[in-house]
Amino acid sequence: MKTTPTILLLGAGRSATYFIDYLAKVVQKNGWRFIIAENNASIVYQKAMQYPHLEVVQLNTSDTEQTFAWIKQTDVVVSLLPPSLHSSIAHMCLEAQRHLLTASYLPAEIQHLDSKVQEKGLLFLYEMGLDPGIDHLSAMQMIDKIKKQSGEILSFASFCGGLIAPEYIAGNPWGYKFTWNPQNVVLAGQGGIAQYKEQNKVRYVPYQQLFKRIQPIYFENLGEYEAYYNRNSLLYTKAYGLQNCSTIIRGTIRMKGFCEAWHALIQIGLTDHTLLIENVNQLTYRQFLESFFPPSTLPWQERLAKYLDLPLNHPTIQKILWLGLHEDEPIPLTQGTPAQILQTRLEQKWQLQPQDKDLILMQHQITYKQENKQHQVIAELMLKGENQVFTAMAKTVGLPLALAAELLLENKIQTRGVKIPCFAEIYENILPLLAKHGIEFQEKSLTKQRLSEID
Amino acid sequence: MKTTPTILLLGAGRSATYFIDYLAKVVQKNGWRFIIAENNASIVYQKAMQYPHLEVVQLNTSDTEQTFAWIKQTDVVVSLLPPSLHSSIAHMCLEAQRHLLTASYLPAEIQHLDSKVQEKGLLFLYEMGLDPGIDHLSAMQMIDKIKKQSGEILSFASFCGGLIAPEYIAGNPWGYKFTWNPQNVVLAGQGGIAQYKEQNKVRYVPYQQLFKRIQPIYFENLGEYEAYYNRNSLLYTKAYGLQNCSTIIRGTIRMKGFCEAWHALIQIGLTDHTLLIENVNQLTYRQFLESFFPPSTLPWQERLAKYLDLPLNHPTIQKILWLGLHEDEPIPLTQGTPAQILQTRLEQKWQLQPQDKDLILMQHQITYKQENKQHQVIAELMLKGENQVFTAMAKTVGLPLALAAELLLENKIQTRGVKIPCFAEIYENILPLLAKHGIEFQEKSLTKQRLSEID
Repeated sequence: MKTTPTILLLGAGRSATYFIDYLAKVVQKNGWRFIIAENNASIVYQKAMQYPHLEVVQLNTSDTEQTFAWIKQTDVVVSLLPPSLHSSIAHMCLEAQRHLLTASYLPAEIQHLDSKVQEKGLLFLYEMGLDPGIDHLSAMQMIDKIKKQSGEILSFASFCGGLIAPEYIAGNPWGYKFTWNPQNVVLAGQGGIAQYKEQNKVRYVPYQQLFKRIQPIYFENLGEYEAYYNRNSLLYTKAYGLQNCSTIIRGTIRMKGFCEAWHALIQIGLTDHTLLIENVNQLTYRQFLESFFPPSTLPWQERLAKYLDLPLNHPTIQKILWLGLHEDEPIPLTQGTPAQILQTRLEQKWQLQPQDKDLILMQHQITYKQENKQHQVIAELMLKGENQVFTAMAKTVGLPLALAAELLLENKIQTRGVKIPCFAEIYENILPLLAKHGIEFQEKSLTKQRLSEID
Repeated sequence: MKTTPTILLLGAGRSATYFIDYLAKVVQKNGWRFIIAENNASIVYQKAMQYPHLEVVQLNTSDTEQTFAWIKQTDVVVSLLPPSLHSSIAHMCLEAQRHLLTASYLPAEIQHLDSKVQEKGLLFLYEMGLDPGIDHLSAMQMIDKIKKQSGEILSFASFCGGLIAPEYIAGNPWGYKFTWNPQNVVLAGQGGIAQYKEQNKVRYVPYQQLFKRIQPIYFENLGEYEAYYNRNSLLYTKAYGLQNCSTIIRGTIRMKGFCEAWHALIQIGLTDHTLLIENVNQLTYRQFLESFFPPSTLPWQERLAKYLDLPLNHPTIQKILWLGLHEDEPIPLTQGTPAQILQTRLEQKWQLQPQDKDLILMQHQITYKQENKQHQVIAELMLKGENQVFTAMAKTVGLPLALAAELLLENKIQTRGVKIPCFAEIYENILPLLAKHGIEFQEKSLTKQRLSEID
């Protein structure tokens, strides 16, 4: 007896809007089932209200018995839960023999399940969002194309950022608002020393240099942005087939000036996540800030300038003052680390407004040798969101997952095992579909002549 | 039947020389037993050769059965083992009902054993070395004396450093050599954000500021040194009875200019202890250093100056070049973190030579109000070592422990429970004995008039 093809979504937070929206239509058309399981089910009722055929269930995944029962009822499990919860979900999917799709980074312990997952005819597809996700799909397509034409890749650099469209940042000197998990933004770079490769040598960038040792990046019609090194760029050397490539860089894009000011917050100590401070609700932001400085009676603008060794009107000073950390407002936390306290303030100041449009930027820069000539190809993605809910971030994270789930149920993806989307079958199928939804790269190629001109 | 009073020393490394030397004579005079248990027993045979009545045994403390058997034979256990091994030793001492003395920091989990230790009539005395140790003894004596005279303590600052006598640092621009565990020096400050109190406010100093936000400290006849904040200065607020004191600072002393150069090593990333690098023996120090910099063909002096934003001939640049991290010598490690690799080089460059004399400096600064006048009292300890083996470090760490063991066996210390040496009985007994061995503080007092003159 053939049962109805069923998709189970675990977790329906910020980045689930497009995923739900797209699959709701697909399952209706195909007569499939779509179950959305979320601990805070009320947020889903809103998102799913116009789709009465969706099944919304309240589920706390720490209730493993109930979670397993739901997984058992489905064909494809998609998890948008926090990465820390994925390990138990993956093991349940293996036992229940269900496919698993997620946008989270692939941990080594799951990679080790590869042969077991293959044996059972399953696909565990990790890193299937934006970054990681669309970056893999698009980069691999470029790399494979160059190799097929006997090109030898000399350098590979890939940048991505979840930003705000320039016309919506007026009055916000940071040029940044939260479009995904704020904690990840505040703790960026604390997972370990960043690594990349340049001139055939592995290079390390410690946290205290990360937002200082930045590089400019240009987008046509938008202008100059900047990028900091993103984690360990070398993790994908083998997956991308870049073992002979002398430069490998992955970076995160921010508006010009952001990194220098964030570097100042790090220098002050405000991003520390090791010290738990108690009774924080008895402090104001000013008292919190004060504790990172030697005593002084100077106004805060002067104190900051002096401590950071910057001119009084430096844009970094203006950015920090704009956050109002020197104001006597109570901190809405009972206890927290400096990073968590900073985050409460940033969430007030960097909140996406209802009509704000976010902006996803991605750029791959590849130089390669072909027939004794050096070439460069640059591929760019620029995508604006629609508003506070239908963000470009939610679209670029949710749509690759939704499309992969659809293709799996249609048997259009045959690859099995524990994977990240670095194989031809996935980018050949997904990229054209993403393009139909406006997620499309523009490529420009330069020959060596042209290169030397712009150097 | 009364058995022979017996002392067991666990671990006989660098700081055990004075301890063994002193107690060897005491036990001979008193007809006691003294057992030295060490995993690497050969290092003890050298130290104990002239004392045939000492019992030296080979013991690996991971062999808990044998360790327990040795503990059971003794009255007082003194541990100079690494702190990580102390937890199991403490529990064995509790079960065997034996006193325990150590120079290590008192962990919270041992503090919790206090009532059990008291019930059994035992003393577990932690932090009984130099710093922590002699700092507690001497500070508590000063604090109690001021309080007895109805003085109200306004500020308390205490500094200590294990240095090298000025006449033995010629040619070493860092003015520093290792006289204790090199790893502790390399990782200093990485245990968590430093904390102190000033103007009645808790102040935090993150690692990236620790060696920058330093303060000068003067010693008569020696001149100016500098100090960085030492861990959490507020841990001793209650033990010292300083709850109403508006300023509490503990600092570590270094030669002038050391901290700025160490700060540069931190900025570069060379003290990182999170990244394990494999096959390090295939690298030279230059290749290791290179990996922390962007590519460049400039000479290293210029690269360092540019990267650190310092003049070409800045003393910090000279200090780093003197370490020879830019030289093409192989690294004597198969794998290691940047901190461990740096340590191998420092151990070559900062090695104590046979005739070198080390220098212990300690200074307490207390201001207090008495009869409506403000007073300041400064107490200083300056102690030079004799040579590479009989260092002032070994003396100031070992002698307080040896004296405490002696006094315990003579029933001259009645205090029981889990303690650090912040109680009158211990400093009243120990400080005069330390003075007899040349470990003596000089005090000078200033009244407010005098204070305002030197301000």
